[in-house]
Amino acid sequence: MLSRLLDAIGGVDAAAAAAAQQHLDALTKPPGSLGRLEELAVRLVALTGRPPQAARPVIFTFAADHGVVAEGVSAYPQSVTAQMVENFLRGGAAVNVLAREVGARVVVADFGVATPPNATTELVVRRIAGGTQNMAVGPAMTREQALAAIEHGAALAEDAIAGGADLLATGEMGIGNTTAASAITAAITGEPAEAVSGRGTGVDDAGWQRKVAVVRRALLVNRPDPADGLDVLAKLGGFEIAGLVGVILAGAGRRVPVALDGFIAGAAAQVAAALAPDARHAMFASHRSSEPGHTLALRHLGLVPYLDLGLRLGEGTGAALFVHLVRAAGAIYSGMATFKSAGVDGPA
Amino acid sequence: MLSRLLDAIGGVDAAAAAAAQQHLDALTKPPGSLGRLEELAVRLVALTGRPPQAARPVIFTFAADHGVVAEGVSAYPQSVTAQMVENFLRGGAAVNVLAREVGARVVVADFGVATPPNATTELVVRRIAGGTQNMAVGPAMTREQALAAIEHGAALAEDAIAGGADLLATGEMGIGNTTAASAITAAITGEPAEAVSGRGTGVDDAGWQRKVAVVRRALLVNRPDPADGLDVLAKLGGFEIAGLVGVILAGAGRRVPVALDGFIAGAAAQVAAALAPDARHAMFASHRSSEPGHTLALRHLGLVPYLDLGLRLGEGTGAALFVHLVRAAGAIYSGMATFKSAGVDGPA
Repeated sequence: MLSRLLDAIGGVDAAAAAAAQQHLDALTKPPGSLGRLEELAVRLVALTGRPPQAARPVIFTFAADHGVVAEGVSAYPQSVTAQMVENFLRGGAAVNVLAREVGARVVVADFGVATPPNATTELVVRRIAGGTQNMAVGPAMTREQALAAIEHGAALAEDAIAGGADLLATGEMGIGNTTAASAITAAITGEPAEAVSGRGTGVDDAGWQRKVAVVRRALLVNRPDPADGLDVLAKLGGFEIAGLVGVILAGAGRRVPVALDGFIAGAAAQVAAALAPDARHAMFASHRSSEPGHTLALRHLGLVPYLDLGLRLGEGTGAALFVHLVRAAGAIYSGMATFKSAGVDGPA
Repeated sequence: MLSRLLDAIGGVDAAAAAAAQQHLDALTKPPGSLGRLEELAVRLVALTGRPPQAARPVIFTFAADHGVVAEGVSAYPQSVTAQMVENFLRGGAAVNVLAREVGARVVVADFGVATPPNATTELVVRRIAGGTQNMAVGPAMTREQALAAIEHGAALAEDAIAGGADLLATGEMGIGNTTAASAITAAITGEPAEAVSGRGTGVDDAGWQRKVAVVRRALLVNRPDPADGLDVLAKLGGFEIAGLVGVILAGAGRRVPVALDGFIAGAAAQVAAALAPDARHAMFASHRSSEPGHTLALRHLGLVPYLDLGLRLGEGTGAALFVHLVRAAGAIYSGMATFKSAGVDGPA
């Protein structure tokens, strides 16, 4: 299954990119004057082979719990993961209101919440286990569990694409998951634990010190192989992160753009890029999180974020905001007059 | 008339701001985790006294020509100003397609285009003269002309507010107007000509050198008084810039937020703030232009831009994108569950 996903991922069409830039340069504006909107349009055309659009965006908000919370790395109790899943299902969370603003569907999936949320028909249940093991003392999960979660995530993305989704967006919820993302980022980028660890939901100084120590310990105990994305994911990841790796790989394979949200999504993206470097062509860094590790993750991925609003919430909130920019890029690309059609003079 | 506009401008409600932040902190997210969206929501509530909204945004795209083009400071011929006005009226320009994306009305007004555009019923005609005088040899306009343009701009804004506009946005078109904006920014901030001058629509090195020299000459010849906003505006400005000063002052007086677009809007904002420092409470820097003078202008105004997309087009394009962020801030503020209502635990 994984090799099927990876084999489908290829490069982008350089000729299509050049033609897209040529088209943009013919529109009634000085060449390049729409900056990142133009770069975004060109990347989207190069990936998809058609004008930019986001008529049917789908946000995947995957939830799971993390054994590492036993180390006291989060400001919030583990109960919040399940409670927030219920909040997502009732539509009261930040990702819900921002998704409504852009008409995006939110797929809420339980990939392994410790206490199963009160299920409604809207909850997608893909539980791998009732949370990961504590990575500070051993691997967070088995390779088989990591593979299973990737498969589930990819299958959900492929279902959405079959249903017409033209933009996939990653979101997540899991108390403790910034610690997992920090460990993954340290393992893959080689950056030290203190550089990739932030305040998460808002730990105090002592909590941050514990978090840094836990990331160091997880690396020492598990000795993940940075060249083996699956090894890093299994030893340091979370089930929701593994699910997002599946979404990213499926999007890349089907040439559907994937809007990455913040730091946790950046960890999933690093794993996906380790498994398939060309998956980066499908990745769009919606925003820069205020988590310091996110900047390092994006640099490693060679991605420049489009928004920089000091967000550090996750859920898919930044990716939801980014949907507007995709539509703006599409409106520019497909809706403007050319110098010729409008009878506007070019440079003197 | 000007004193009537200025007298209406006051401070903001600090108690309303504190209450707004308290409300945001009760919502199901770690406090402050939505970063600039929260700051934006608080500023909007403090200004307007009600939850953030942008149900009826109006973009004012004012056009005029500039005598300073005689100095060879632009990459495009002056004919483009009128041609672009016609493009705006046909809906083919970038601001049109981005305005459509957010359902914003675009008010296209001729404040003094050299050759009057082919008028349709949609063109608002508020011509002060057929372009300004060349500021490199004398004042761009008289104080009376500056005042008349401010009055026209303010009246158009007040009409829009009377019609229900809840967000005003500034836009402009005028070949040569980055040179005017550079001169205004140099005069008000005290920064040197080479620091406030950029490539505009795309001049080459020689054109940039000419532009810097022209800005220096305009300052030497005119000796504008930085403490007298009207003096700076009349000597170095443009009719469309003066019109935008009117929009900003009217918005501030009526406590309706004003989304500033790029560098030209930043010049108008500096003049407005020189006339009425409290007008800054109504100013929202939608984005940071890639024109270097814009960063200096925003620093002088104490404003931090929300978007940073390398735009340098003007017209109101960045302000149009910003409408989404106002709506996102409103959705967060008014649409989310609280920890209490959702039964979500707080910090451990």
